[in-house]
Amino acid sequence: MILYDYWRSSAAYRVRIALALKGLVVERRFVHLRDGAQKTPAYRRKNPQQLVPALELDDGSVLTQSLAIIDYVDAIHPDPRLAPSDALLAARARAVALAIACDIHPLANLRVADFMRDELKLDEDRIAGWRRHWIASGLEAIEATIEPAPFCFGSAPTIADICLAPQVFSAERFGVPLEPFPKIRSVSAICAAHPAFVAAHPFKQPDAEATAPAP
Amino acid sequence: MILYDYWRSSAAYRVRIALALKGLVVERRFVHLRDGAQKTPAYRRKNPQQLVPALELDDGSVLTQSLAIIDYVDAIHPDPRLAPSDALLAARARAVALAIACDIHPLANLRVADFMRDELKLDEDRIAGWRRHWIASGLEAIEATIEPAPFCFGSAPTIADICLAPQVFSAERFGVPLEPFPKIRSVSAICAAHPAFVAAHPFKQPDAEATAPAP
Repeated sequence: MILYDYWRSSAAYRVRIALALKGLVVERRFVHLRDGAQKTPAYRRKNPQQLVPALELDDGSVLTQSLAIIDYVDAIHPDPRLAPSDALLAARARAVALAIACDIHPLANLRVADFMRDELKLDEDRIAGWRRHWIASGLEAIEATIEPAPFCFGSAPTIADICLAPQVFSAERFGVPLEPFPKIRSVSAICAAHPAFVAAHPFKQPDAEATAPAP
Repeated sequence: MILYDYWRSSAAYRVRIALALKGLVVERRFVHLRDGAQKTPAYRRKNPQQLVPALELDDGSVLTQSLAIIDYVDAIHPDPRLAPSDALLAARARAVALAIACDIHPLANLRVADFMRDELKLDEDRIAGWRRHWIASGLEAIEATIEPAPFCFGSAPTIADICLAPQVFSAERFGVPLEPFPKIRSVSAICAAHPAFVAAHPFKQPDAEATAPAP
């Protein structure tokens, strides 16, 4: 399998964590988002959405969307389970994952910031304010729904933690204060000590830039 | 079960379709989003995200996020399957569902338009242009990934169709031309003739407004 990856992509980071939790090692190709490598015809044939991650299977099929990729990997390599087998617990974990993947991350990502700057002519302060607003209000709702034990939903990481750790990384990057969210900070600290989360961290990736321009 | 619903919410519309496909009838409570009913303390206790839909189970548990609710319903009432049982096909159907639920809908919904108007002081034309941009570019990517037969992924509706039909409704509402997307129009036409999709349509809901102000 080949993972199309970018070190600072929150969605790619999720897939890296999931693969590491499963102990799966895949070939990786790096798609430099800031250089626009996702917009080349060759990559668009892989993923018409022009986003990372994408996972190319050995038969040439290409899977897209981080949560769909994670569900696929969870079905094919079910140990350890990333979506809880109990339907109600799975629904709660999925709700946290989706609250991040749908209602925080897409509002705060690179393509949206580019559109706000280039098309809406908004200055960097307003773009930063917009980003912090959606991240902070999104995390506030998540804080109200998790009961760390010590991961979001029990003693092992699930898709909720897999989405939360990259979102916390992004919140810190964009200067969102995390003091109001003690439960999220507690989960984040546990994740930060877990080998799979450590291995998947943006700063540990081969394509990471030492001095990354903001944002 | 109680569904917290709003006629014009694209996410609630998805859950209505899923419940109708399963033949499940639930009690419904209507949360008038334009009046701000989602922001009341009583509703925030149900869903801290202040979004619809939410599904309250008989034991009082409240599920949120349309795709998590649909996966739950699919697990508890597996006939007919809404996520294909084949892992690869499921991944492809989920990718379409998530491309809509993550990368189109959250950028074009009410709370985002409100923020752009009230906080960023953008005028209605620019908000409408923003919305059409994300809807059109999102649909363009989906057009490249589906092969209608006659639904997105075979002879029966899946989560892909469940997300696509409401997104097409929303595209039409916001004046996004659908001519460039013949495959999407073909799926949309098939869905429009399916009883479950008909029953779930916004205009058929008890809380629908005859003359809805835009948007």
